[in-house]
Amino acid sequence: MAEVQLKAGNAPEDQIANEGAKLKESEAQIGTSDVKPQFVLKTPKGARDYNPKQMAIREKVFNIITGSFKRHGAETIDTPVFELKETLMGNMVKTQNLIYDLKDQGGELLSLRYDLTVPFARYLAMNKISSIKRYHIAKVYRRDNPAMTRGRYREFYQCDFDIAGQYDAMIPDAECLKIIHEVLSELKLGDFLIKVNDRRILDGMFEVCGVPADKFRTVCSSVDKMDKMAWEEVKSEMVAEKGLAPETADKIGEYVQRHGNSELIDKLLQDDKLSQNKLALEGLNDMKQLFIYLKIFGVEEKIMFDLSLARGLDYYTGVIYEAVLVQKPGDELTRQNESSEPISVGSVAGGGRYDDLVGMFDPKGRKVPCVGFSIGIERIFSIMEQKVEASEEKVRTTETQVFVATAQKQLLEERMKLLAELWEAGIKAEITYKKNPKLLNQLQHCEDAGIPLVAIIGNRKLKEGIVKLRDVSTREEINVTRDNLIEEIEKRTSQS
Amino acid sequence: MAEVQLKAGNAPEDQIANEGAKLKESEAQIGTSDVKPQFVLKTPKGARDYNPKQMAIREKVFNIITGSFKRHGAETIDTPVFELKETLMGNMVKTQNLIYDLKDQGGELLSLRYDLTVPFARYLAMNKISSIKRYHIAKVYRRDNPAMTRGRYREFYQCDFDIAGQYDAMIPDAECLKIIHEVLSELKLGDFLIKVNDRRILDGMFEVCGVPADKFRTVCSSVDKMDKMAWEEVKSEMVAEKGLAPETADKIGEYVQRHGNSELIDKLLQDDKLSQNKLALEGLNDMKQLFIYLKIFGVEEKIMFDLSLARGLDYYTGVIYEAVLVQKPGDELTRQNESSEPISVGSVAGGGRYDDLVGMFDPKGRKVPCVGFSIGIERIFSIMEQKVEASEEKVRTTETQVFVATAQKQLLEERMKLLAELWEAGIKAEITYKKNPKLLNQLQHCEDAGIPLVAIIGNRKLKEGIVKLRDVSTREEINVTRDNLIEEIEKRTSQS
Repeated sequence: MAEVQLKAGNAPEDQIANEGAKLKESEAQIGTSDVKPQFVLKTPKGARDYNPKQMAIREKVFNIITGSFKRHGAETIDTPVFELKETLMGNMVKTQNLIYDLKDQGGELLSLRYDLTVPFARYLAMNKISSIKRYHIAKVYRRDNPAMTRGRYREFYQCDFDIAGQYDAMIPDAECLKIIHEVLSELKLGDFLIKVNDRRILDGMFEVCGVPADKFRTVCSSVDKMDKMAWEEVKSEMVAEKGLAPETADKIGEYVQRHGNSELIDKLLQDDKLSQNKLALEGLNDMKQLFIYLKIFGVEEKIMFDLSLARGLDYYTGVIYEAVLVQKPGDELTRQNESSEPISVGSVAGGGRYDDLVGMFDPKGRKVPCVGFSIGIERIFSIMEQKVEASEEKVRTTETQVFVATAQKQLLEERMKLLAELWEAGIKAEITYKKNPKLLNQLQHCEDAGIPLVAIIGNRKLKEGIVKLRDVSTREEINVTRDNLIEEIEKRTSQS
Repeated sequence: MAEVQLKAGNAPEDQIANEGAKLKESEAQIGTSDVKPQFVLKTPKGARDYNPKQMAIREKVFNIITGSFKRHGAETIDTPVFELKETLMGNMVKTQNLIYDLKDQGGELLSLRYDLTVPFARYLAMNKISSIKRYHIAKVYRRDNPAMTRGRYREFYQCDFDIAGQYDAMIPDAECLKIIHEVLSELKLGDFLIKVNDRRILDGMFEVCGVPADKFRTVCSSVDKMDKMAWEEVKSEMVAEKGLAPETADKIGEYVQRHGNSELIDKLLQDDKLSQNKLALEGLNDMKQLFIYLKIFGVEEKIMFDLSLARGLDYYTGVIYEAVLVQKPGDELTRQNESSEPISVGSVAGGGRYDDLVGMFDPKGRKVPCVGFSIGIERIFSIMEQKVEASEEKVRTTETQVFVATAQKQLLEERMKLLAELWEAGIKAEITYKKNPKLLNQLQHCEDAGIPLVAIIGNRKLKEGIVKLRDVSTREEINVTRDNLIEEIEKRTSQS
């Protein structure tokens, strides 16, 4: 419904007041009463509506996630859906063709936000904030090729948690991984694994393998495909497409095919070449420290140090990580698979440390070290929706505790009176908006909507001060005095 | 943080993989390490960030509002931030120049939603939904002249509640008014009044006063100014600018200067001219019924039947209403005012019945009657923020219950261990991300952030299995055994 805001100020009614006449006539102008609309009824490509059932699932997921964020003392912020175009351009060199621009209608040039990280960095720099622990759940926009069945949209939620501030190494980083672990455990999406690596280890490794400095990023993006391609394929890409010497690729292969836990870190700290490289050594020492903290936090078991994890974005400067759902051998989908390794079925969270991004926005280049992650919430919604479909579990889309019904005519005002009493007491209650509804229709609605209780009133019982309370699932009915009704409803619905 | 979604599919990394080299080099490319950014650090005109304190207030307001909506059995939906341009064009003839268009980057032409009503109508028509009670809280966009200090933005929240469906007259309409009453009472914004009128009464009145049919809307928009202008001014606008005969304007004046309650309705039902007009009679009879229901709902006292209420939008077909905050004579702001009438200080909610809008979207013109309202949430945020500022009330931006601190060095791992135990038990807890923080800094942080408890650990006490629990406000400290700690924290923070 509309227009409180417009009303408050200098609404543009005058400019256009001479335009229309009666409503009927203005309808005719836009071609409705007689001629039907010519336009297609659809949502834009890659975008979707959320129906009430999807919203109920979305709310449940958000509650679990924000519950965890709040348990870790996070605040939340919000930023506009659009930013000045120039704010987004600098840092998104790679992805400029995916950014939605607004039309130039005079004034500033704007673009829809592409992620929540750049607006966060802009916010920190603009407000000169040097430390904050914040989450931000909001929609972002990409002119990408949507694959909506797989939870890939052009308008989609991101759910970001970040810790900004100058702190001792790996302490906030460990908390980020702890939170990812907490959220994925509570969402009960199935088994998962969090892969961890460090940009400094990757860069150090490339250096000692003899990759030319100008090929670090392109080789990195080949390495990043190892979760979807065999090493031989990745190698041939490196050699054929990216012009790496085969020996160099082989050296890389010796490292990136390895994954493990703190023992692997210790082995690599003994590695003749890697341990001599300053960057790699820094990364490995921090990784060792990280695993100590992860053990204290009780999450070490699900963390895997994986030298092939590279992640796409340029701005990472230290630890990087990615959470994937896995299916153990023996599970339905992996039966044909020979390996005894768990198999990734999709990334659901990822992030890392980016110590330089805020400095890019600060006029004085003042740095604010940051570490954080984004939860792939659309994929999680898809999984949750599929789970609900499969389980035939009934998802309630309202929280109504009691429906006020009657079998008799002329009792609308009595239903409304009782309804007002219930609302007054904080009870969630409804009636049918009909003067003389059929009882069967009222009861059917309660079954369909999952409303647990019906308060049935009738003329004779009203005189006696009694209401019949019906349990929708058992169909049991009891008489309750009006005085005890609220207490009885609360008692019977307090568990929900 | 970024890029889970991108990662999952065919990310465009290849296209651009040859672009960068090391991170340091890519920074140099975009001119940061040496040359500082040239761009202005700001949010777009008319848009703003919400900082954690504003978010805490926003969350509180939303909780009250959605609490009321849920008490009335409403579901919620969400729609994309943009719609096909043609979806928005038909119904917004007046306001086309306020719509944000997206740039034509190939594919569909899109615009940002202007309100939530048109997307709702599109949703109902597209999904062939004939009845729903839904709310939708989301941001909408208007290229308006922002007046941000008065809560007028280009990006702002709307908070809509609507009941769609073919029902008996005035029952859902009365519930809408009941909900507005509930929300405004619970928000404690001060005294308020809900003005009610009906488009059919207005149109019937214009007819009997002799307004030419093609001038109904423009005269209507003059009438709508009576909350801000004296009748004489409105009259002279009608005559001089809109070409109405002075006698016609005088006749209108006799009606629109009246307001009251059900007695006024009865008087108008006796009015020789009005009672002969079919439209007006329909409207008056429904209004009489509405007041009966409002009395049952216990809200009649704050409802005022006001013949000058017109509201801006063309699509209303029946009851219209608008809630305003009022200051009684004697209040600070109105002391100079002579009148004993309450004075409106601003509209905070409004809406009405629009039975034809959904039909405009349906290919077969199938109608779905609707009634609903929008809460002027940005204005409410402003008022709440001002109230908080004035009261010097401390707004907490986190929910942290306990901070784990120490006065000694080398106890980081012990703090982390306790922290993990607290999180495991569902306690909201934090530490400082430093190896050897000063106790005073830790305590100062708790005072600043409003964290009620500090669990202080020390080497000797650890051996004895004891933690010192400090109450931040009273500075009282007690020793608690590790086994009892969680229980003690829960006991002391359960009220918050």
